[in-house]
Amino acid sequence: MSAPDHAPSPQLFFETINAFQKSAALKAAIDLALFAAIGNEPATSAELAARCQCPERGVRILADNLTILGFLTKDGATYALTQSSAIFLVPSSPAYMGAAVNFLLAPSLTEAFTDLASTIRRGRLHTTEHGTTAPDHPAWVEFARAMGPMMAPTSQGAAELVTLDPSRDTRVLDISASHGAYGIAVARKNPRAHLVALDWEAVLAVTTENAQAAGIADRFSKITGDAFSVDLGSDYDAVLVPNFLHHFNAEVCTRFLQKVHAALRPGGQVVIVEFVPNEDRITPPPAASFSLVMLGTTPEGDAYTFAQYQQMLAAAGFRDASLHPLPPTMQSAVLAVA
Amino acid sequence: MSAPDHAPSPQLFFETINAFQKSAALKAAIDLALFAAIGNEPATSAELAARCQCPERGVRILADNLTILGFLTKDGATYALTQSSAIFLVPSSPAYMGAAVNFLLAPSLTEAFTDLASTIRRGRLHTTEHGTTAPDHPAWVEFARAMGPMMAPTSQGAAELVTLDPSRDTRVLDISASHGAYGIAVARKNPRAHLVALDWEAVLAVTTENAQAAGIADRFSKITGDAFSVDLGSDYDAVLVPNFLHHFNAEVCTRFLQKVHAALRPGGQVVIVEFVPNEDRITPPPAASFSLVMLGTTPEGDAYTFAQYQQMLAAAGFRDASLHPLPPTMQSAVLAVA
Repeated sequence: MSAPDHAPSPQLFFETINAFQKSAALKAAIDLALFAAIGNEPATSAELAARCQCPERGVRILADNLTILGFLTKDGATYALTQSSAIFLVPSSPAYMGAAVNFLLAPSLTEAFTDLASTIRRGRLHTTEHGTTAPDHPAWVEFARAMGPMMAPTSQGAAELVTLDPSRDTRVLDISASHGAYGIAVARKNPRAHLVALDWEAVLAVTTENAQAAGIADRFSKITGDAFSVDLGSDYDAVLVPNFLHHFNAEVCTRFLQKVHAALRPGGQVVIVEFVPNEDRITPPPAASFSLVMLGTTPEGDAYTFAQYQQMLAAAGFRDASLHPLPPTMQSAVLAVA
Repeated sequence: MSAPDHAPSPQLFFETINAFQKSAALKAAIDLALFAAIGNEPATSAELAARCQCPERGVRILADNLTILGFLTKDGATYALTQSSAIFLVPSSPAYMGAAVNFLLAPSLTEAFTDLASTIRRGRLHTTEHGTTAPDHPAWVEFARAMGPMMAPTSQGAAELVTLDPSRDTRVLDISASHGAYGIAVARKNPRAHLVALDWEAVLAVTTENAQAAGIADRFSKITGDAFSVDLGSDYDAVLVPNFLHHFNAEVCTRFLQKVHAALRPGGQVVIVEFVPNEDRITPPPAASFSLVMLGTTPEGDAYTFAQYQQMLAAAGFRDASLHPLPPTMQSAVLAVA
């Protein structure tokens, strides 16, 4: 049961209808490098306007709205960064993730939400047939470039769950490797692990760059193409399936997990990383609302519950499925044994 | 000073960047008449899908997300309306305001937010020169048709503040009359008041319909055209200026208020209705964030504070400016005497 309704009010309606303006304001701040312009030196709107070389009116209105949204603080007429904004939205910060807007607000993604009613009514996307599941969809190159930093905490948490034998050479397959964060985190933690990254060709160029930068290029190889039809190889100790299954329906996921099972050594691990809502499908909100992204951008994807992953895994031949939240992120790992 | 920052987290960034999807989900629910489909009969997603004649997946994901957003409740697998959704989002309800999406999410408005950084950087709108302040802008016809119900509580509250002499014929001018809600509320409360509505010609067709429906057609006349250049007439007992001044800069507002002053009898009232943020410009959020709408859609508009209205009114020759919040709405009335 959700929170009770208070005094009837159209306020929530008004606020939700205008919610798109919040995305627009945050994107504008990133585009204008406003967070960098504040940095460690709190400033008035006039000072900020000078630093950004913009007229003051727009800077003032934007800064006030960023304060309302929680990205800045305002003391008198002086704006400062919140701790989170300093960490995540200043480009010189190691944890900077502002570039994620290049993927999350790319036209191919936002356009998918312009007529969601049509998508729901017809049971197929109102924009394209396959959405982001189309072969070699360019969004995934942008994703690989833009989303890596955002995945750092999740990939660290997931890597902790991968248990490889340190006394021998091991093999790890990273499905839809993208930025490579998941596989690279495992490879860095396990010096005798060889990493195989699978993705579209243009995406693997980014993965390769990142593997080189991480110093694991000599333990890195690639499989190019469609995960459903390529030969995955065999005798893996672990197969990582991060943020991949949510794009497909449960039957397709199960069939794919059978293929993963066949590629693993007996006793090998599958490590699925996902937004996993509770069985009520409405909590916690950040995980549960991911279903909407899949509704808008994929023909049949979803945010699956742990019970659904248990079913898929069992049907694919896995045993001992377990759920592992990855705080402070909103994602979870689902592990099972081949 | 804003709320303190808690443990650093990118969650707010992620949620705000995706906020546009909330607007899309709510719009889809209105387009699909999902709230009407639930009505007084709570239903599962399968039942709702049958009622809406849509495949179930999309209806389920949408209903879960509407629950997360607070528009529905979910008990087990059964969705029901909140009290506010029943009142404001079911078309058969007298307080229905779902049609407001036709204005608030019209392409001419949403497009204004696709490149807010450019608007801020250049100090002029990235879409059009005058935004919604252009002569005869078609958005105002949509506004008049779509937004009247949303203005009902505000117009009732504002009408209470207009003090006309009941013992003689009086004259009331409604600037940018639109749906006419403000002037009509005053006219209905004051049987000897004659209402003059000023707006663009196409908009006044809607005003006239509404005046007829309200039974005040015999006490109603029109002034067509640009409020800044037309002859307003004279000897008014009250001039209503609802949601008009925020479109312009303070100098233009002051000049317009001088013109209003000249049109009033000595002792007559000006009644401004606006989103009036506190002097900190960041509270209350629903009023303060209106500045962002003006940044996106007008060359020089703003959400002015009461101190700013006091200045404008004094400069225009008014006395005794006073501020009157109009709960439960987020708007306020600013009154002054000629």
